[in-house]
Amino acid sequence: MHPGKQQYVVARAAYSEVGFKAQHQPVERYHKTALDHVRMYFRCSTSRVKRILLSLFPIVSWLPTYSLKEWLVSDIVSGVSTGLVCVLQGLAYALLVSVPAGYGLYAAFFPILTYFFLGTSRHISVGPFPVVSLMVGTVVERMVTDDSAGANSTIFPADMSKEERQVWVAASVTFLSGIVQLALGFLQVGFIVIYLSDPMISGFTTAAAIHVLVSQLKFVFQLTVPGFSGPLALIYTLKHIFTHITESNVADIVISLIIMSVVFVFKEINDRFKSKLPVPIPIEVIMTIIATGVSYAFNFEETYSVDIVGSLPKGYQTPLPPNTAVLQQSFGDAFSVAIVGFAVAFSVAKVYSIKHDYVIDGNQELVALGISNMFCGAFRGFAASTALSRTAIQESTGGKTQVAGLLSAVIVMIVTLAIGFLLAPLPKSVLGAIVIINLKGMLMQFREIGPLWKKDKYDCLVWVIAFIAAVLLGLDIGLGAAIGFELLTIVFRTQFPQCSVLANINGTDLYRNRKDHVNIYEPEGVKIFRCPSPIFFANIDFFRTKLTEAIGFNPLRILRKRNKAIRKIKKMLQKGELMATTKGYVETADGHRPNDSDNENDKNEEDPDAAPDTRELPLRVDWRSLPAGIHVPGVDTHSIVLDFAAVSFLDVSAMKGLKSILKEFVRIEIDVYIAACDVSLLLEKLERCGFFDEEITPEIFFLTIHDAVLCILDRHDSIHTLSVSNGKVTEDKEKLQVEEELGRETARCSQTHSSESPGTEA
Amino acid sequence: MHPGKQQYVVARAAYSEVGFKAQHQPVERYHKTALDHVRMYFRCSTSRVKRILLSLFPIVSWLPTYSLKEWLVSDIVSGVSTGLVCVLQGLAYALLVSVPAGYGLYAAFFPILTYFFLGTSRHISVGPFPVVSLMVGTVVERMVTDDSAGANSTIFPADMSKEERQVWVAASVTFLSGIVQLALGFLQVGFIVIYLSDPMISGFTTAAAIHVLVSQLKFVFQLTVPGFSGPLALIYTLKHIFTHITESNVADIVISLIIMSVVFVFKEINDRFKSKLPVPIPIEVIMTIIATGVSYAFNFEETYSVDIVGSLPKGYQTPLPPNTAVLQQSFGDAFSVAIVGFAVAFSVAKVYSIKHDYVIDGNQELVALGISNMFCGAFRGFAASTALSRTAIQESTGGKTQVAGLLSAVIVMIVTLAIGFLLAPLPKSVLGAIVIINLKGMLMQFREIGPLWKKDKYDCLVWVIAFIAAVLLGLDIGLGAAIGFELLTIVFRTQFPQCSVLANINGTDLYRNRKDHVNIYEPEGVKIFRCPSPIFFANIDFFRTKLTEAIGFNPLRILRKRNKAIRKIKKMLQKGELMATTKGYVETADGHRPNDSDNENDKNEEDPDAAPDTRELPLRVDWRSLPAGIHVPGVDTHSIVLDFAAVSFLDVSAMKGLKSILKEFVRIEIDVYIAACDVSLLLEKLERCGFFDEEITPEIFFLTIHDAVLCILDRHDSIHTLSVSNGKVTEDKEKLQVEEELGRETARCSQTHSSESPGTEA
Repeated sequence: MHPGKQQYVVARAAYSEVGFKAQHQPVERYHKTALDHVRMYFRCSTSRVKRILLSLFPIVSWLPTYSLKEWLVSDIVSGVSTGLVCVLQGLAYALLVSVPAGYGLYAAFFPILTYFFLGTSRHISVGPFPVVSLMVGTVVERMVTDDSAGANSTIFPADMSKEERQVWVAASVTFLSGIVQLALGFLQVGFIVIYLSDPMISGFTTAAAIHVLVSQLKFVFQLTVPGFSGPLALIYTLKHIFTHITESNVADIVISLIIMSVVFVFKEINDRFKSKLPVPIPIEVIMTIIATGVSYAFNFEETYSVDIVGSLPKGYQTPLPPNTAVLQQSFGDAFSVAIVGFAVAFSVAKVYSIKHDYVIDGNQELVALGISNMFCGAFRGFAASTALSRTAIQESTGGKTQVAGLLSAVIVMIVTLAIGFLLAPLPKSVLGAIVIINLKGMLMQFREIGPLWKKDKYDCLVWVIAFIAAVLLGLDIGLGAAIGFELLTIVFRTQFPQCSVLANINGTDLYRNRKDHVNIYEPEGVKIFRCPSPIFFANIDFFRTKLTEAIGFNPLRILRKRNKAIRKIKKMLQKGELMATTKGYVETADGHRPNDSDNENDKNEEDPDAAPDTRELPLRVDWRSLPAGIHVPGVDTHSIVLDFAAVSFLDVSAMKGLKSILKEFVRIEIDVYIAACDVSLLLEKLERCGFFDEEITPEIFFLTIHDAVLCILDRHDSIHTLSVSNGKVTEDKEKLQVEEELGRETARCSQTHSSESPGTEA
Repeated sequence: MHPGKQQYVVARAAYSEVGFKAQHQPVERYHKTALDHVRMYFRCSTSRVKRILLSLFPIVSWLPTYSLKEWLVSDIVSGVSTGLVCVLQGLAYALLVSVPAGYGLYAAFFPILTYFFLGTSRHISVGPFPVVSLMVGTVVERMVTDDSAGANSTIFPADMSKEERQVWVAASVTFLSGIVQLALGFLQVGFIVIYLSDPMISGFTTAAAIHVLVSQLKFVFQLTVPGFSGPLALIYTLKHIFTHITESNVADIVISLIIMSVVFVFKEINDRFKSKLPVPIPIEVIMTIIATGVSYAFNFEETYSVDIVGSLPKGYQTPLPPNTAVLQQSFGDAFSVAIVGFAVAFSVAKVYSIKHDYVIDGNQELVALGISNMFCGAFRGFAASTALSRTAIQESTGGKTQVAGLLSAVIVMIVTLAIGFLLAPLPKSVLGAIVIINLKGMLMQFREIGPLWKKDKYDCLVWVIAFIAAVLLGLDIGLGAAIGFELLTIVFRTQFPQCSVLANINGTDLYRNRKDHVNIYEPEGVKIFRCPSPIFFANIDFFRTKLTEAIGFNPLRILRKRNKAIRKIKKMLQKGELMATTKGYVETADGHRPNDSDNENDKNEEDPDAAPDTRELPLRVDWRSLPAGIHVPGVDTHSIVLDFAAVSFLDVSAMKGLKSILKEFVRIEIDVYIAACDVSLLLEKLERCGFFDEEITPEIFFLTIHDAVLCILDRHDSIHTLSVSNGKVTEDKEKLQVEEELGRETARCSQTHSSESPGTEA
């Protein structure tokens, strides 16, 4: 090797894999077995235990480095702003769960306390999320019916009020979903989050924003909407709203529109003058206070029959064990809640962890959310995840750590304990309007579609499918469908490889697509075929079709025709119509054509797909000059090189298919070479699987395309009729023939490699 | 290029992709757009129309070449044997549909008539299949209740008997499933069959055999088993049978055991003396005739209360339009029936098409089965697919074409029209025993597991999961789960690539895993990293981890430490604690350590992840000899080569991740080169997606690893301190610096390539 300036000069032996291995014996290495990996996984050491404990309490790693000077002010501002929104959203989402509004404050308080210690995301605001709330609400509606004689009435004490029952059901479902999350976390199932690709998360969260939007419409229009659930729930809800739109309250619509416009304008101002404002204007809070004041002053409730929040319960209540009957009957729902809650929280957390460049841990998030939900459920709250809008507020108002979250919980506590009564006159439509306007950021993700389509069609498709599935099927089934489709795209990407025929760039050892270049050299009779993807059950037939197209003929057809021709020749020899002369087979009779029907009789004797049996023939058959009356399509290819550089794996179906393809070519005396194949991944596997036999040997594997082509040229340069040699292409037979025919020794490359290739370093 | 004997001698310019492109301008090619493909798909030509018509009537291609002499005898023998089994199975499976036994003869007759013309499989025996029959039976049981006042009673005429209603429901569901199959066929959805890999089909058909076995147990024990359906139906059925086993009829068990043993022995004899017997002994038929005779003679029905077939309806009835109310209420069931029926028929057909080496067409099979089911449903039959056992008989008794199938239909017709009454005394347990014993072949597929595990763990897992899913979840859901898992394995296979670090084989241009060889040369400061799989969302993090492990340090950590160090140096320079001399930075004060807390103030000013900003510094920072008090981990790598030969695709997530990884390395002044990357698939895509900017240029792409290494050696051989050059690694800056520092022109490889690389052909 001459590493001379900008010159690539190499002189070495041309290697087949076998020859290379003989000269450069690989080291015997111990490869870890599955058992070793399991053992390693359960290995115990103090540093490991310490690491696990640290990962269980992420707060230990970030709180000591907390920078009071830099972060505290931002966190306080963010915590207060978020806390006020927490209060507002808690009230709004409690209505979706069909429990009194005050319990929403519990759901906005308890989960944060535990997440503060256990969570790995620094920016998400843990608490009620509308879709999850809606899902819990479905169970509540199902279990607690107005009809006190209903089937479920036996599971509650007789003296319990309807409200208490509703709260108990919601708390029990929440507790169960927490158990599910905790279990998944300990089972280390958080790894599923690597399957949440960026386009999928983007599409899914955009769909979630649509769900939130629709869930808030009923407050904007002040309509009673039944709790639809399952696929197409969104459509039914919209249909219900639009069919009942005439019943909506004009006062509420006006209030909502005013709130929305004002909040929108101020948010734009906040955005534009970000650098000049010391702190963003907390416009939502200001508008809520104004709206509450105005509503109280002009008595909106009675004057315009505006729906108001009403009085809130004061203080906290004792913990409540979950209702076992509810646990049994709601496992499916709790599982959906657990998965959707986690998926939403994690996907939002991932957005911010990428933006602020820190690591979040899926398993730990599951554990944190699980414990938070169990804690919250025990204290009569309902399922927590994160609200997209609230997290956006926490981050955009400058929240740096979960200290902001903790402060928001303090605000919620203050409202619960002290000033809750002040919120009683607040119109619900104000809550709805604020939630809707905060969805802007998530809905803006629609703009990603265009650039994504230009970058990668499959990823764009994943976005669109994730969005449509989550909108139409609901977030739970939609998420499953989206992940399924996303994984399917990996199959699609590899399923239809852009196979190409390569040729040599003049004067180099490089091979490129022959269609891409003009001055390109394709050795005569050699086809170099590249498959740029793994080969497996779903594309082995495609691979065969493309290879056949590239070669220009179907080897099986040629083989069957040749076998038929050989039978004819044998018959004609028997009948004396042909004579074997030194010039080949010569007809003796005057152009007598063999009768086709004669041949049908012995059809059953021989397998038409076996290698031609020419042992009984006195002479080789030269397929280029056959006796009259026998036609076999001509073959002008003597060697095929398959470039397997990008074939990263082969499965059993592919190995079987590849073997049958190789056999077909070998039997019509076309040599197949496989180049640049990964030795440790593929070649060793093929050997292990019994891929090789007397027809297909490991000798066909070459290090590079150029090595294979050199060997081919070497073989076919001197012996131009080798391609029509007799019988199977095995080393000894062929060699003997070559010697017989040409009467001289010919240097044989693959022969030499395996024996005594000299070290030829330049 | 010297194609000399067994010598690989090359002397050419070392190329980067950019340099290569400049010298070998690729041809401008028109690439087909999606629209072109659609246009092509709908293009119309006479040959195309002819081909489509031919593919719609496969009989046109095989019947004219039918060899009377050779095939007719086999087909007659096979047809008669299969016909008798058709009769037996038709009777048995009709009981699973909850219709009178005689209608099973219709289901065994009508579908064959149409499949003969339309089907592409030569060996499957179309007709009733127990699992599909059971699925139809579930609908019948649901729709036709004993309670005549039930909700569904309004959909039938009041004067219709229960039996007639059952038949009508079964026929309607069958008709609907036929419509579904036909629609799927015309939509060309038959391509889904490429997702049925060999191990999956094997596992699935084995599970189907278990289902058939269990469905026949109730006849063997003569027990009444309720029609379980859905997941775990098999378990419930078995549980029911074993809890009620004391109620079983000993006479039936004895009959079954006798039939099973005799049939088993004779089948073994048939197998062993295959070559000596002119025709296999039709033992099932003989035993059925004997059993019927004995049952009649000793009046089994009354003496031992054996359950017998009873009288069959004679002849055929007029066609019946499907019941529209049933069609509306059973779409889901009909869809499952259509899919399972097709999947079973196709997977069985594929087994025999591989064995006998002919091509079957998934779409055409869908069309054929669809029309057959519609035809059968119109004539009061029930859903047809193929029975595994019956097809095995048709093939093993020598059936060559569907002529055998047609003859079996004739036999069924003869029984229906003439001699049906003779079968009345036949015990049902005889039917069950014969069906069970014929499952042997399918159940023997269990032996595939061992070899499969040795060949490919994933494929073995697919077999096992397909089997377990189909057994436990039922064939419909199980099939979906199996396909889902099978596709998931493609993701798994690529998800955890075995990345490796390569090194040069002495004296060659070859690079192999450095762990595998002893005499291997790793250029100093160069790491060659190979990722042997595509990179996408699910493994980009894995790729990053493995790369970081291979390099030995985390570039982001180094970058942040360096930025911190530069801030310290600036501060020390300002304070006069450091002086810039020709020997580098020299401390002036007596070992004064910079105060850590000082640096915290300006943390917010600069992005810790940006490239170090050294413009204000008077001298380059030599990271190897820093002033006292400033510590930055040492980096002994100056170049990384990524071998992308096997990276067959990158998705958007991977591109984003790769870009951030590359940036991190570039910013700590490590050059990254990408070698052997597919130009048309990857490089062009990266260019299209805006992957390149001023930090990452297309110049980093090289044709082979060796080209990249040559360039690296060239750069670093003469300029050993280049890796510590100042600022960003862009062409001009660096060049200037090199000139400044070394005061001489240095030949730069990537520079030369893009401008005036001479044609250096040897």
